[in-house]
Amino acid sequence: MNETIKLLQNHASIRAFKDEELTEEQINTIVKSAQMAPTSSFLQAYSIIGIRNQEIKEKLSVLAGNQPYVAKNGHFFVFCADFHRHTLGAELENYNEPLALDSTEKFLIGAVDATLAAQNAVIAAESLGLGTVYIGGIRSNIEEVSELLELPKHVIPIVGVAVGFPDQDPGTKPRLPMENVYHQDQYQQNNEILKIQLTSYNEIISEYYNDRTNGVRKDRWTEQTTRMLTSEKRVTLKNFLAQKGYLLK
Amino acid sequence: MNETIKLLQNHASIRAFKDEELTEEQINTIVKSAQMAPTSSFLQAYSIIGIRNQEIKEKLSVLAGNQPYVAKNGHFFVFCADFHRHTLGAELENYNEPLALDSTEKFLIGAVDATLAAQNAVIAAESLGLGTVYIGGIRSNIEEVSELLELPKHVIPIVGVAVGFPDQDPGTKPRLPMENVYHQDQYQQNNEILKIQLTSYNEIISEYYNDRTNGVRKDRWTEQTTRMLTSEKRVTLKNFLAQKGYLLK
Repeated sequence: MNETIKLLQNHASIRAFKDEELTEEQINTIVKSAQMAPTSSFLQAYSIIGIRNQEIKEKLSVLAGNQPYVAKNGHFFVFCADFHRHTLGAELENYNEPLALDSTEKFLIGAVDATLAAQNAVIAAESLGLGTVYIGGIRSNIEEVSELLELPKHVIPIVGVAVGFPDQDPGTKPRLPMENVYHQDQYQQNNEILKIQLTSYNEIISEYYNDRTNGVRKDRWTEQTTRMLTSEKRVTLKNFLAQKGYLLK
Repeated sequence: MNETIKLLQNHASIRAFKDEELTEEQINTIVKSAQMAPTSSFLQAYSIIGIRNQEIKEKLSVLAGNQPYVAKNGHFFVFCADFHRHTLGAELENYNEPLALDSTEKFLIGAVDATLAAQNAVIAAESLGLGTVYIGGIRSNIEEVSELLELPKHVIPIVGVAVGFPDQDPGTKPRLPMENVYHQDQYQQNNEILKIQLTSYNEIISEYYNDRTNGVRKDRWTEQTTRMLTSEKRVTLKNFLAQKGYLLK
């Protein structure tokens, strides 16, 4: 097993960081690695906001649902879908119509590009011995987050990533059985088989929580996910996207 | 520079593969690496279809816009947003209401999870000496692709990835200037500065094409992107998502 595979397979989110900032060199390495990620049709339809300013981090932390590691970390990154520079590019080309950015497809391209860059950044950071955690919570108050970061039209925060010097070692969390996630040639259509796989995974996850909490928690995975999916969250996203030029037609 | 950073920063898409299939061991390593990717709220809201069957690959290749490397590769992966197993999980929990999957946010969670898994797969494959190329074209005829792969409700193809033994070495393609993509603390709001950066990048890209095509092509980056963004593509996505249970409310 090579070093990169080891790194990928040993990933765990880190939610406690030492009080130490990333160096400029570390930030540059992480951003350059992010930039070399694949990108749809070479559009490079994303931007990265790197936050060092403690006041902005504190505000973000509140907006993201009071997650302390959004404020306390070595550096905080926000990866955004971004077609703003393409609109400036069109001006440079003397193209005076609005660009065609109204389809769901276009927003998806930006979201995928931002995520590809983010995951490269995470892997680069981890290879430098740093810890990382994704923060979907930056979408919880997306309008306020966008104002705080002064994002123009066509720029949408997709994911945040806190990076820093790890102050914990939580170990990996067992994933779904491979045969539940990986389908050969066509999707496994037999729901009874899929349910049997989920049931055996429930036992693994229950035991995982039991071990880590000395018996306090024993959640099944399907119990967790069902609880989480009984109500919609972040329902302002659609209107926000429309305001920002993505009509999701 | 460590091996992983080198790998990330030397990424280039490979579009010509030798006539050799991936081994089971390679596929397992790639899929297990993908599964260890971060996932929103531990939902693991994605599935991977791995295609070995040559007939299915040929059909996919046509549906993806006649890209030959979709048919000729060592293995083809389709990464899908997937909340199907969560609906089965709800049945296991005796929860009889439909899950709340109507918001734009929920679809975005699935798309991000699928992309994170895909990028881990790509990096794992490249670390094994394999080449990769993303195929957004699987969304060009998304309904037919979904029928071919027998995807149930709530399963949406997000990206394809062709993997194989490289039969070309195209070298890296220069990305946008870092200061155009990376913003310190808040978005760089001065459009004139952003345009100057784009103009100098245009020269780099023009020269890149000039060198690679012996003067046949000299496209500016903003010329390419403007041409690409004057019309909507894949406009069926929204209706398809609605059919599959994602209303994007």
